[in-house]
Amino acid sequence: MRQSYHEELEDINACLVEMANAVGSAMSTATTSLLDADVALADLVIAGDDHIDATRESIEQRCFTLLARQQPVAGDLRTITTAMRIVSDLERMGDLAVHIAKVARMRFPDHAVPQEVRPQLLEAGHVAEMLISKAATVIAKRDIEAARELEKDDDAMDQIHRGLFRQLLSDDWPHGIETAIDITLLGRYYERFADHAVSVARRVVYLVTGEREPVSAD
Amino acid sequence: MRQSYHEELEDINACLVEMANAVGSAMSTATTSLLDADVALADLVIAGDDHIDATRESIEQRCFTLLARQQPVAGDLRTITTAMRIVSDLERMGDLAVHIAKVARMRFPDHAVPQEVRPQLLEAGHVAEMLISKAATVIAKRDIEAARELEKDDDAMDQIHRGLFRQLLSDDWPHGIETAIDITLLGRYYERFADHAVSVARRVVYLVTGEREPVSAD
Repeated sequence: MRQSYHEELEDINACLVEMANAVGSAMSTATTSLLDADVALADLVIAGDDHIDATRESIEQRCFTLLARQQPVAGDLRTITTAMRIVSDLERMGDLAVHIAKVARMRFPDHAVPQEVRPQLLEAGHVAEMLISKAATVIAKRDIEAARELEKDDDAMDQIHRGLFRQLLSDDWPHGIETAIDITLLGRYYERFADHAVSVARRVVYLVTGEREPVSAD
Repeated sequence: MRQSYHEELEDINACLVEMANAVGSAMSTATTSLLDADVALADLVIAGDDHIDATRESIEQRCFTLLARQQPVAGDLRTITTAMRIVSDLERMGDLAVHIAKVARMRFPDHAVPQEVRPQLLEAGHVAEMLISKAATVIAKRDIEAARELEKDDDAMDQIHRGLFRQLLSDDWPHGIETAIDITLLGRYYERFADHAVSVARRVVYLVTGEREPVSAD
């Protein structure tokens, strides 16, 4: 029984990694749909979110069953409660990819993103992919080094976000309020995506080292 | 031991209610600081968030200790895992109150909110207070009726939010991009606050009835 119990724990972890990869694909596709005004890709992201939500449900249920049947203590207990938290960060990251896809869909056949801020959003997309891919590594290998790197990628996202606002507020912003609203919300979605990746990494660091870093208020 | 265990469960629930009330005060103060451009109130909200975060930490730790020492099953186990989820919704709602206070602080001594959209933000503040106060009742009394009402208040928040956008996009919006960005983000903060209140209520409904309502992707 103990053997199958630890196998179950490992399998739950493998599912978390798979879920992180699915979220990464969703984010990457969402960014492409946004920058190419590709409504078919946007719809893929929107439809695919059900699968991510179902994965969350399934992982939560398996964690709950382990808690109820195995009554784990100490390290195993902490592993399970950490998994339950990570799964909700990942689900939320999937939702944010959907929000981005929905902006693309709403403005189609127009481009939601004008040329002036295209480089920043392209970069935000790249950093987001990097963040979720490192988060997957952190989950898979409990890799503390990757967790530290991820914090730096989050700093890069903050810089992109600030750059985006500078652009919106420059005197020669030629687009109207509607586009400014879209870009403001898009910037917020990418920033929140990054925050959740940091949160995933910090939960694993805490699990492994017992060191808790202050959770950002953003 | 069983007796003190159930007392501990009840006490944790009482702490959740207190935390919800603290979040309600933070939100109410944040709205006032925003509408009155009152930087002292804004600072109160910002400083007070440490207390809310500490309450979260303490409730989580107590839940974890119960899981480890008492190895609860069935209903008690679900009560504890639900508390662990609710506490993270509440903490996030506190963060959103801080975000609102920070907009007030950033624009001080100017008003962040121009007269045109003041009624909508006043109303958003009222609905937010109603939502968190009902959420506290739902937690305290497992009151399913209050949980249903709360969903309607959330619809009201969505309407306010849409009205805000209409106003921003009307041809006679006389304020610049910067104000539009502020209002866009403020609208988002109030909307997310409402979403988390709904999430709290749904978690309690699920705990009591076993009925899970689909969690919104917003």
